[in-house]
Amino acid sequence: MSADTLQKAKAARAASFRLAAVDGARKTAVLHRVAALLKERRDSILSENSRDMELARDRNTSPVLVKRLGLNESKIDAMIASVNEVAAMPDPVGTVLLRRELDGDLLLEKVTVPIGVIGIIFESRPDALVQISSLCIKSGNAAILKGGSEAQWSNRALFSVFVDAMREEGPVFDDGLQLVEGREDIRALLALDEYVDLMIPRGSNELVRTIRDNTRIPVLGHADGICHVYVDRQMDVEMAVSVTVDAKCQYPAVCNAVETLLVHEDAASVFLPLVAQRLKAQGVALRGDERTRALIEADEATEEDWQTEYTDLILSIRVVSSLDEAVAHINRYGSHHTDCIVTNDKDAADAFLRRVDSSSVLLNCSTRFADGYRYGLGAEVGISTNRIHARGPVGLEGLLIYKFRLRGNGNLVADYVDGRRHFTHRELP
Amino acid sequence: MSADTLQKAKAARAASFRLAAVDGARKTAVLHRVAALLKERRDSILSENSRDMELARDRNTSPVLVKRLGLNESKIDAMIASVNEVAAMPDPVGTVLLRRELDGDLLLEKVTVPIGVIGIIFESRPDALVQISSLCIKSGNAAILKGGSEAQWSNRALFSVFVDAMREEGPVFDDGLQLVEGREDIRALLALDEYVDLMIPRGSNELVRTIRDNTRIPVLGHADGICHVYVDRQMDVEMAVSVTVDAKCQYPAVCNAVETLLVHEDAASVFLPLVAQRLKAQGVALRGDERTRALIEADEATEEDWQTEYTDLILSIRVVSSLDEAVAHINRYGSHHTDCIVTNDKDAADAFLRRVDSSSVLLNCSTRFADGYRYGLGAEVGISTNRIHARGPVGLEGLLIYKFRLRGNGNLVADYVDGRRHFTHRELP
Repeated sequence: MSADTLQKAKAARAASFRLAAVDGARKTAVLHRVAALLKERRDSILSENSRDMELARDRNTSPVLVKRLGLNESKIDAMIASVNEVAAMPDPVGTVLLRRELDGDLLLEKVTVPIGVIGIIFESRPDALVQISSLCIKSGNAAILKGGSEAQWSNRALFSVFVDAMREEGPVFDDGLQLVEGREDIRALLALDEYVDLMIPRGSNELVRTIRDNTRIPVLGHADGICHVYVDRQMDVEMAVSVTVDAKCQYPAVCNAVETLLVHEDAASVFLPLVAQRLKAQGVALRGDERTRALIEADEATEEDWQTEYTDLILSIRVVSSLDEAVAHINRYGSHHTDCIVTNDKDAADAFLRRVDSSSVLLNCSTRFADGYRYGLGAEVGISTNRIHARGPVGLEGLLIYKFRLRGNGNLVADYVDGRRHFTHRELP
Repeated sequence: MSADTLQKAKAARAASFRLAAVDGARKTAVLHRVAALLKERRDSILSENSRDMELARDRNTSPVLVKRLGLNESKIDAMIASVNEVAAMPDPVGTVLLRRELDGDLLLEKVTVPIGVIGIIFESRPDALVQISSLCIKSGNAAILKGGSEAQWSNRALFSVFVDAMREEGPVFDDGLQLVEGREDIRALLALDEYVDLMIPRGSNELVRTIRDNTRIPVLGHADGICHVYVDRQMDVEMAVSVTVDAKCQYPAVCNAVETLLVHEDAASVFLPLVAQRLKAQGVALRGDERTRALIEADEATEEDWQTEYTDLILSIRVVSSLDEAVAHINRYGSHHTDCIVTNDKDAADAFLRRVDSSSVLLNCSTRFADGYRYGLGAEVGISTNRIHARGPVGLEGLLIYKFRLRGNGNLVADYVDGRRHFTHRELP
């Protein structure tokens, strides 16, 4: 256990109690100050970032990672815009979710509050630090940030912006953000379930899986995104083709791209040759089951293919005998992330939307829509395949919980138990 | 790993996909059938229960446990009433939480769905099996039940009632409830995070703590209930006394009874002698810090007392110099369960309600009100001190999550990315 990480976690926990009660206006002021400092320190941030870039090139880091790591003028502009956007949102804390009269002089309220201490582990992209820190400040959470060592200098520069902005706004924000750096600090952080309430990993599937497997802290996110398009027997063939192509090719490296295409046997002979032609034109490699390969040219799909997230221009295809079989395949092999049916049959659509157990179930549109921005959630905390707390694309509400407030006038339970007084349980506006 | 438990968990997972899509009317029918069968089988249930009672007495089980274990006519009546009450509730599944137009022909909905598979571990009380099974059926969840071995025969009789009622309503309910029995099955169950989505322990603090410490499955509940009453400087003394006495004495064995009394130094000399007299008259043993013991007779309170849930007629008392000190004490030593301020000062009340980080924060009323029935939540799943998903007294909504449904007309993400189409993001009623 790193004593330093433990101390930072304790400080964050103590800060969380103060942050939960901070006025919305002061949180907005911090974020505006962050935006101003990002502008002021643009040059020094870029020069720190180039130190990371140089080190990365010296270490022969893959060009993809180097690209993610790199900042430039327009990325800093985007950061500033995103901080200002979060600043402009209404204060999410203190929203009254329920008001109920328990008795004439006993009023219950359920109000949103921050969760407490959020642990964030992210890779490469230094802009992730800015985005998630802004969201934590807005929602009144303390946060412990662990960035990748490859972005160490950039992260330090950006972290200072936040710390300085918070310090200027007063001691109530002290210790509200913590940065930990060493690889051994990850292990320490994951053990601190007493101090950290929620872990949010931002990075590869492998990162998420490693974190999930090594902590008792709840983890918000998703490891795999094995998404499906199911083309039903009755559908518009051109629509089915274009939805499939968009879902696979518009951005194949992301979690909501389709990995497996399921086709009703009655539709297969018409649909498959058309879609195969369009996909191949975009460079997609096809893998099919036996019935698929009787109709189009494709490599053989194995059991492993149904369980694989390619995040690449590869698509596995299976012909099914019924909607039931499609639903069963998705619930069994999918990652309960995002799955789509293309159909003109209202009953089939309803059955699919009800029975597919995924965080997003779609009718006649691309799986790529499953995203916080497209769903209109504002800032996105992540996409969750969890089954409690928050599921699917998660906005700021994923960083909140609630508490009950009960205001009385000397009310005693004994009076209600003994029948001298009675609950009214009346909902209030 | 018990192969039997694994098989039951897999069957429950498969059932959960079917149960999620079952009509409300059919779930209600199952529950009505359960109520009817409880009536029909009353005698055999009572005779199975007496087998457990005899065995418990043979084993010199503590009278408290034996009392909890025992069923009688009126307890069966209460079970029947509670099942009918759950049956009468509206279907909690399929509630639309949000409707948003993303574009003219692209409609997003967020709807409630069951979590999936709930694991329940309970001790003694066989009525817990009835209550939680009813709630799981109503909410469309599959459940794996692990009862105490001391209630084995009673649990089997009650479990059969559910299984038979479900079988009569058709194969869609098959495998939806599973019973596991052996002590080694607990360990097996706790390892099945792939198949079980949420664990709900119903029993002692120790049971909850043991489960928390031995599983990666999220656990809904609370271990400790270290609740506080803080008596501020400006308050109605008689109100402060009666709230304190009710919070301690009305039912001292439960989690929402007060364990520590904090008193503002300006109020101590008037309030403490009065409350001490009333508490002692009710047989409460007092433990105080130095300043308390300068004013009333009490044993010495140690650091350990502030961290102890007595669940007994014992109260620790501390004099504080300010509201700040009271809040700091509660956030540090409390279990974030239920805490109360007695005050006439509106600012002090607001500060306390905002700054105390507990699932229920109360003003001028007894801590004993923190309870699902009193809060008007209907059936209570439990009281949670978690910081995600559900907090405080939890009703049926604690067994639910949501999914997104998106209905389009062939919409492609490429059109929006390339600027050919634009999101409208309009909230719908």
